[in-house]
Amino acid sequence: MQHLIRTSDFSKEEIMGIFDDAREFLKFEPNEILKGKIIVTLFFENSTRTRSSFEIAAKRLGAEVVSLDVGTSSTNKGETIFDTVANINAMKPDAIIIRHSECGLPESLTGFVDCPIINAGDGKHSHPTQALLDLFTIYEHFEGKTEGKKIAIVGDVKSSRVAGSNRRLLPRFGIDVNLVAPDCFKYEGDEFKQYNNINEIIDELDIIMSLRTQLERHNQIYFESLQEYAKDYCITNEVVGDRDIILLHPGPVNRNVDISDEMLKDPRSKVLKQVTHGVAIRAAVLKKLILK
Amino acid sequence: MQHLIRTSDFSKEEIMGIFDDAREFLKFEPNEILKGKIIVTLFFENSTRTRSSFEIAAKRLGAEVVSLDVGTSSTNKGETIFDTVANINAMKPDAIIIRHSECGLPESLTGFVDCPIINAGDGKHSHPTQALLDLFTIYEHFEGKTEGKKIAIVGDVKSSRVAGSNRRLLPRFGIDVNLVAPDCFKYEGDEFKQYNNINEIIDELDIIMSLRTQLERHNQIYFESLQEYAKDYCITNEVVGDRDIILLHPGPVNRNVDISDEMLKDPRSKVLKQVTHGVAIRAAVLKKLILK
Amino acid sequence: MQHLIRTSDFSKEEIMGIFDDAREFLKFEPNEILKGKIIVTLFFENSTRTRSSFEIAAKRLGAEVVSLDVGTSSTNKGETIFDTVANINAMKPDAIIIRHSECGLPESLTGFVDCPIINAGDGKHSHPTQALLDLFTIYEHFEGKTEGKKIAIVGDVKSSRVAGSNRRLLPRFGIDVNLVAPDCFKYEGDEFKQYNNINEIIDELDIIMSLRTQLERHNQIYFESLQEYAKDYCITNEVVGDRDIILLHPGPVNRNVDISDEMLKDPRSKVLKQVTHGVAIRAAVLKKLILK
Repeated sequence: MQHLIRTSDFSKEEIMGIFDDAREFLKFEPNEILKGKIIVTLFFENSTRTRSSFEIAAKRLGAEVVSLDVGTSSTNKGETIFDTVANINAMKPDAIIIRHSECGLPESLTGFVDCPIINAGDGKHSHPTQALLDLFTIYEHFEGKTEGKKIAIVGDVKSSRVAGSNRRLLPRFGIDVNLVAPDCFKYEGDEFKQYNNINEIIDELDIIMSLRTQLERHNQIYFESLQEYAKDYCITNEVVGDRDIILLHPGPVNRNVDISDEMLKDPRSKVLKQVTHGVAIRAAVLKKLILK
Repeated sequence: MQHLIRTSDFSKEEIMGIFDDAREFLKFEPNEILKGKIIVTLFFENSTRTRSSFEIAAKRLGAEVVSLDVGTSSTNKGETIFDTVANINAMKPDAIIIRHSECGLPESLTGFVDCPIINAGDGKHSHPTQALLDLFTIYEHFEGKTEGKKIAIVGDVKSSRVAGSNRRLLPRFGIDVNLVAPDCFKYEGDEFKQYNNINEIIDELDIIMSLRTQLERHNQIYFESLQEYAKDYCITNEVVGDRDIILLHPGPVNRNVDISDEMLKDPRSKVLKQVTHGVAIRAAVLKKLILK
Repeated sequence: MQHLIRTSDFSKEEIMGIFDDAREFLKFEPNEILKGKIIVTLFFENSTRTRSSFEIAAKRLGAEVVSLDVGTSSTNKGETIFDTVANINAMKPDAIIIRHSECGLPESLTGFVDCPIINAGDGKHSHPTQALLDLFTIYEHFEGKTEGKKIAIVGDVKSSRVAGSNRRLLPRFGIDVNLVAPDCFKYEGDEFKQYNNINEIIDELDIIMSLRTQLERHNQIYFESLQEYAKDYCITNEVVGDRDIILLHPGPVNRNVDISDEMLKDPRSKVLKQVTHGVAIRAAVLKKLILK
């Protein structure tokens, strides 16, 4: 049995297979590939967006979804997460999708279950389906020619799990990853080129991935205001100019902090396409893990 | 593509078609008319009742429903409703059912989507499926002979969206609309006859529609007590007598404020029949808009 | 029409029929026995665990589930439970599953509906599907030879509805029920042997059913600490020794208060098997009540 904890759980060939299926699902032809399957979502962190994407993906394939409202569940009654998951597992679901604020938790649950676990985000560690949909969006745009393409990931590259998963996935497809962040958000490893300002590298880029600013943190700790952060890190038409660059963002976008209103409407912005791709990629992941 | 924002979005012929389908659905024969379709409910105001009615309607036709818990969604993360809806739309649902406290909001969202939007109540403006099910209940009772029938809508006709939608819909089917309300709740237009007390018109009526009193408001602002309001506006057996009148209410009923216990049990009260009709009408609306 | 309020609503023959179906469902072969059926869950007390079990059971048979979030429903708007249920009933569901903190409430609702009501726990009174799954676990373990088997139910036998339902159900299958509890939790009837300490009876037992300690109550009222309670009532390897006894618990287990970590891992512990059986038993109950 296979889980999806991090993107490296899949070989390049497996990822290509997922992309083939995702492309097929984007035709929106009715199917019942997962009919009779039960998929449990277990979100210890709120994420209506990611959870809905998984739920719609599952339902598009004819599966049934049981969403456990963890806020009101037995974990409040002193039960550990391991007991909660062991109990859910005893109800014999066909997959469990889990999000938790603790790095590594989904992986440590794999020993307690008889079905695939899909990591829908664990702390600052990973968000593998997000990275897969990001790569898919890049792959489709460049018609498979990802080799040698240059991306800048911009923002809090230190604590973003989206950045984390992409840093590890994109180089496997020949994409040159560069990080752009203020000192306080710098990534601690040294395997990537890091920049303070996107202007230092803008002329070489094919792709910009803007990250979501954690509004609540910045405002008070590192920057006097979000506007001050935005001055250097908001992706605007001035920054991009008429360059042939596509723009990604995992959403939800802080308008005029992460990306300007104008740039968000620009056809080079693929933010909503990423959302559409997200459903297809998640459907393909569910199919792969459940049917194999 | 057609939306349902207000009852005038449908011609009389279209409404007759909806009634035909609703009548069919009331036979509760299994069907899969909307199999494989994904319907998203997006309720910014709580309404277990209306949401369940839509959810059951959709599931009766074999559709899948994804209920977004908006209280915990990204709108809390600083995202606008327009971005939320654009994102949901990018997941390619087949319809979005929306309730919001702001008049006109569902309509203004229609420019952001590729699927039908169904207004499940917007502020004081409209509640079109409620008005359609009210009309359907009247239509079925009078076997289609609505022309010349007289209705009194009783209660807060000023701020009730149910009253609003009915005021606009019923006259199209020849129903003579009269409004009964204390001064504080009077409708501001002058196209309807308005009364302070139902006794002034009771002998001419075929239908009474009692509205839900907003308990929290009245008690303190306009009336010394709910009992004082009820004295004049509660529909009791004393008020109705043995007249041949049917009684409607959009629910939930404030017992002995809107309608007396006894009158609620009277066979002339169609309140629970309205609930049954509600599911059938909503199923018919979903079928019409999705299968277009 | 038949409801399930208490286990005595089913004859022994009917229970055997439910066990036959449950055994069948444990093969997890795809089926659509309840396709097109709508099942409403109405939980006035939180119980993610029981609700999920019913939801998965229903979906395994192809039924649709509508979960009413009662916390945000019209009961907040001054509507009575009876009106809420009459309204749900008017939407014509095929079954209503209800949990409420008040003893007897599910039964008193039966007069307001046209579909089966399934009691998923009412106050200290009953939890019939739990008792059925407990009996099923015992029945399967002893290959039907329940006659003369001895069980000790340990813990708060006074206010546990699980104990209540089992006390009434197990003797019908020849099981000798014994209760073990501190004085403060003693059952008030005199039809069962009661003990202060499980050691007094341990050598005669075939089955131990540990109950869930209500953490919040004990700690402050009856015992100086949970550890003090656990000293006498926690089921440990020291208590059980190498005896041929199976161990049950309705979950969630308070580890090292109700049952020790070590004993919970012991193959004689059937706690997770009960969870698996729970889904199958609930599926069989739904089938029986809805299809008859």
